[in-house]
Amino acid sequence: MENPSTSPLAMSVQVALSSWDMQNSRFLKLLDALTDEQLQSEIAPGRNTGVYLLGHLAAVHDYMLPLLGLGERLFPDLEEPFLRKPDKSGLDFPSVAELKSQYAAVNAALSTGFATLSPENWLEKHTSISDADFQKEPHRNKLNLLLNRTGHLAYHFGQVALLK
Amino acid sequence: MENPSTSPLAMSVQVALSSWDMQNSRFLKLLDALTDEQLQSEIAPGRNTGVYLLGHLAAVHDYMLPLLGLGERLFPDLEEPFLRKPDKSGLDFPSVAELKSQYAAVNAALSTGFATLSPENWLEKHTSISDADFQKEPHRNKLNLLLNRTGHLAYHFGQVALLK
Repeated sequence: MENPSTSPLAMSVQVALSSWDMQNSRFLKLLDALTDEQLQSEIAPGRNTGVYLLGHLAAVHDYMLPLLGLGERLFPDLEEPFLRKPDKSGLDFPSVAELKSQYAAVNAALSTGFATLSPENWLEKHTSISDADFQKEPHRNKLNLLLNRTGHLAYHFGQVALLK
Repeated sequence: MENPSTSPLAMSVQVALSSWDMQNSRFLKLLDALTDEQLQSEIAPGRNTGVYLLGHLAAVHDYMLPLLGLGERLFPDLEEPFLRKPDKSGLDFPSVAELKSQYAAVNAALSTGFATLSPENWLEKHTSISDADFQKEPHRNKLNLLLNRTGHLAYHFGQVALLK
C-alpha cells in the first residue's frame, strides 16, 4: 500500500490528510444515520441545531478552498446564515438534503485540490497571512490550517453525535 | 521565534504539536470556567457528564505515555471507571479537583516526553503495532497517534463546552 520511499515530510502530510479524511468519513456516516428531523433538533436544550452545524461546517470547509489557494468558494451563500449569523437568526436555511449535497461537493473539491499539492506545498503560507508575517511565523502554513480545521470538525462532530 | 533552518519534517511535527497544545489549552481554560456542579451535569439529557468526560480524557491521554514509549501510565486506576465502564456505572469517581490535577499531571508528563522525541522519532511506530504490521502500514506512527488523540480531545471538548 505505502511507498517505502515516501519522504519524511510526505509521510507526515499523509498522516494529516488521513486524519482529515477519517473525521470527514465518520461525520458523513453520522449524517447518514440521522433523520432530517433529528438533524433539525437542538444538540442540547437551547443550543445549536444539527442542521446549523452542518451548514456551518460546509461554510467553513468551503472557505478552505481560497485559503489554500485551491479556487473560489463553491457556495458563498452559506456565509451569511452559517458564519455571520448564529442559529435561529430567522434566516431561511437550505433543506437538509441540499446542505448534505453541498457539504459533499465541498469536500470533493477539497480532495481534488489536496491531490494537486506536493508535500512541500503544505508548508507554504495560506492566503490569509502576509509574506512579511509568514517570515516571522512560518508555522502558519497550509498544513496548520488543515489541522486546525480538522480539530474544528471534530469539535462540532462530537456535538452533532448527541443527536443519535 | 522560529528557527529558519527548521527541517520540513520538523516544521510539520511542530504544527501537529501546536495543534495538540492548542486543544489542550482551550480545554483547560474551559475547565477553569466551569463550576464543579456544572462539570457534574450531563452534557445533554441522558448523556455523559462533564466529569466522566474529564476522567475519560485523562485516562486516554495517560495511555499515550506507554503507547509513545514515554513511560508507564501515571494513573492506571482511571482505566476501570473511565475506559472500561460507561458513565453512571455506579463506580465512585475521584473528586473534580483530583481529576483536574491528574489531567494536568498527565499532560505535563506528555509535554516532557514529547520534548525528548526528535522529528524522526515521530515517524517511528507506536508500541501497539507489531514490527511486521508497521512494515506494511508505516502511517501507523507516533505522529498519527498524536493527531488521532488530538481529534478525540476536540470531539469531547465540543461536548463539554455545552456545559457553559
